[in-house]
Amino acid sequence: MSAWVLPDHIADVLPSEARHIEELRRSLLDVAATYGYELVIPPLMEYLESLLTGTGEALDLQTFKSVDQISGRTVGIRADSTQQVARIDAHLLNRAGVTRLCYCGVALHTKPERPYASREPLQFGAEVYGHTGLEADLEAIELALDCVNKASVTGPIVVMGDVRIARSLMGGVMLSMDTLRNVHSALAAKDASSLAALTRDFPAASRAGLMALLELYGDSAVLSQARERLADFPAALSVIDELEWLGQQIGDRVQVSYDLADLRGYAYYSGMRFTIYVNRCNDALVRGGRYDEVGAAFGRNRPAAGFSLDIKQLVTVVAQRALQTAILAPWSKDDSLREAIRQLRAQGQVVIQALPGSASEADEFRCSQKLVLNQGQWQLQPLV
Amino acid sequence: MSAWVLPDHIADVLPSEARHIEELRRSLLDVAATYGYELVIPPLMEYLESLLTGTGEALDLQTFKSVDQISGRTVGIRADSTQQVARIDAHLLNRAGVTRLCYCGVALHTKPERPYASREPLQFGAEVYGHTGLEADLEAIELALDCVNKASVTGPIVVMGDVRIARSLMGGVMLSMDTLRNVHSALAAKDASSLAALTRDFPAASRAGLMALLELYGDSAVLSQARERLADFPAALSVIDELEWLGQQIGDRVQVSYDLADLRGYAYYSGMRFTIYVNRCNDALVRGGRYDEVGAAFGRNRPAAGFSLDIKQLVTVVAQRALQTAILAPWSKDDSLREAIRQLRAQGQVVIQALPGSASEADEFRCSQKLVLNQGQWQLQPLV
Repeated sequence: MSAWVLPDHIADVLPSEARHIEELRRSLLDVAATYGYELVIPPLMEYLESLLTGTGEALDLQTFKSVDQISGRTVGIRADSTQQVARIDAHLLNRAGVTRLCYCGVALHTKPERPYASREPLQFGAEVYGHTGLEADLEAIELALDCVNKASVTGPIVVMGDVRIARSLMGGVMLSMDTLRNVHSALAAKDASSLAALTRDFPAASRAGLMALLELYGDSAVLSQARERLADFPAALSVIDELEWLGQQIGDRVQVSYDLADLRGYAYYSGMRFTIYVNRCNDALVRGGRYDEVGAAFGRNRPAAGFSLDIKQLVTVVAQRALQTAILAPWSKDDSLREAIRQLRAQGQVVIQALPGSASEADEFRCSQKLVLNQGQWQLQPLV
Repeated sequence: MSAWVLPDHIADVLPSEARHIEELRRSLLDVAATYGYELVIPPLMEYLESLLTGTGEALDLQTFKSVDQISGRTVGIRADSTQQVARIDAHLLNRAGVTRLCYCGVALHTKPERPYASREPLQFGAEVYGHTGLEADLEAIELALDCVNKASVTGPIVVMGDVRIARSLMGGVMLSMDTLRNVHSALAAKDASSLAALTRDFPAASRAGLMALLELYGDSAVLSQARERLADFPAALSVIDELEWLGQQIGDRVQVSYDLADLRGYAYYSGMRFTIYVNRCNDALVRGGRYDEVGAAFGRNRPAAGFSLDIKQLVTVVAQRALQTAILAPWSKDDSLREAIRQLRAQGQVVIQALPGSASEADEFRCSQKLVLNQGQWQLQPLV
């Protein structure tokens, strides 16, 4: 096998896409900063037990492991930064008040999350800690939308659900962890026959409610239907009120829909969850919501809401940027040329110097002007 | 052991330092762009043989290994990106002309490189491929200097050497790889007694030349001394001419010194090498030079010159930035408030919204103004 073959789902990012990713990275971090989200940089590698504290088996299986020579202990390369940022909130900052944090860095997955996904996503995310009210949920959704808009994503759709609805329908029902997991899977897959079989011995109201969830997806009309069909479950009704309020707040700027059976990540989220989809992409671009228990494993159970996205996925659904224009300059020992180049670069202009005897090649820059000596002055001329 | 303890030499980067690192990262990439360096993003993980192709044992020992579940092969987390970028130049781009590439990303080391170094440096680097002439060496040094200046490093010192000088002194001497390695180590450590013992059986001129190298460090006067003491070695003399020329080109903007015995990285560099030091830091901030053989292992032996630095080290030697100012806004369902906040954020202002009933805390932002309702208009007022 050639020395330059990369592992499956691992790729080099070449110039023009790399610059586009860098631009997206900056604009997302800048949008988060305008909301007062402070940047943190958690490490790529941690002791495994710290990295997986309070998370499920799925993340464990997604994590590359190695041995730390210094301590002899098992370390992992992060597959997700959410837990790391919760650790920073809980222990390093340890603030009493509302804390807003954002991050952007690579993660590594043992297996791709989607058929064409990179095993090395560039994860960007933001989290607000310390506020229980719906205002924090709203802020997370609005920030996610501003990020998606800033990246020039066209026609985003927000889909909201809430894990507390299914939970309230099963309140008081005795069931094994296995059954619970299977019920969640059947709901997530909208698999009516499995769900009917699994809930055969459930109380009639619970069963009817769970079966109803399978049909409760679509625009805001779904919420009215849900109020009728889940009328026996007051906890579910108040969650529906919350979803309606959130939808109203953002309904003027984006298409909102609901999916009350969508329980993906149910082990993780503790309340409202949202995804943002775009037309040209089958999979969700943004995943977020409320995960109040995320810090509990670190001994500090703070309310938390936030979201994350993969910039390597984002770059595939937005239009390519135009090439950056550049100035071609000759090479000479002439001090006035060096000074002219220095000044242009200090102004932020790209000046590509042709090294003597060698042609220059670039994919990312397009030389539209050249620097020429005209009556003792270095001047810019159009390059045709 | 607590779940939030991190491995030795691994740390979270907290808000104000993280934002400073992000600013440095952007300004270094922007400086490289003004020289026409195209950004590439090589992967964090590669098959081990690809990652270590053509490199020495030292990099192997610095590399964390794991197993790829998909292929069953051993993978490594990069400890250095230089080899990866050479692979990209050699195979992915495969251009005939001069190619300029830059990169910025984390690497992982099994052991810290210096007593206080992070095992997770944020490596920034730039490479120019395809040009043999000294103009490429000069461009690499000038770009490195512009980067260091852009970061507001005060009083940088460039130290230059060239591995070809020691090589020319040992030309025609039969010696084992072990002896060669020990001679290099003795030169690098300026260990005269070891060097005298190791070179006891060398031809007299070689031995005298090598012993002379130990004293040949300092300002440009060193070059004149070197010309006298190495007069028997024409190849060394022409290298000295090259170093002098390079020093003259940058001497008007930075203090230049020479160290003709400095062979650190000798397995890697093929010609001129340079380091940039600053006052407040014992260790070199920037390391670079000419490594023409870097692409050979990938079947494409292109001339190459470049440099790299660790932004986590850089941030420790430059002055801290002032906190970003922010605007404190109340929370309300009032549409005019939301619109006012949206406009301020769109202008790039930081607006921190106080979620109802919760205090906000931030280290990175300093609220200097607040948004208040005054006669039906949301207005900014100084916050005292």
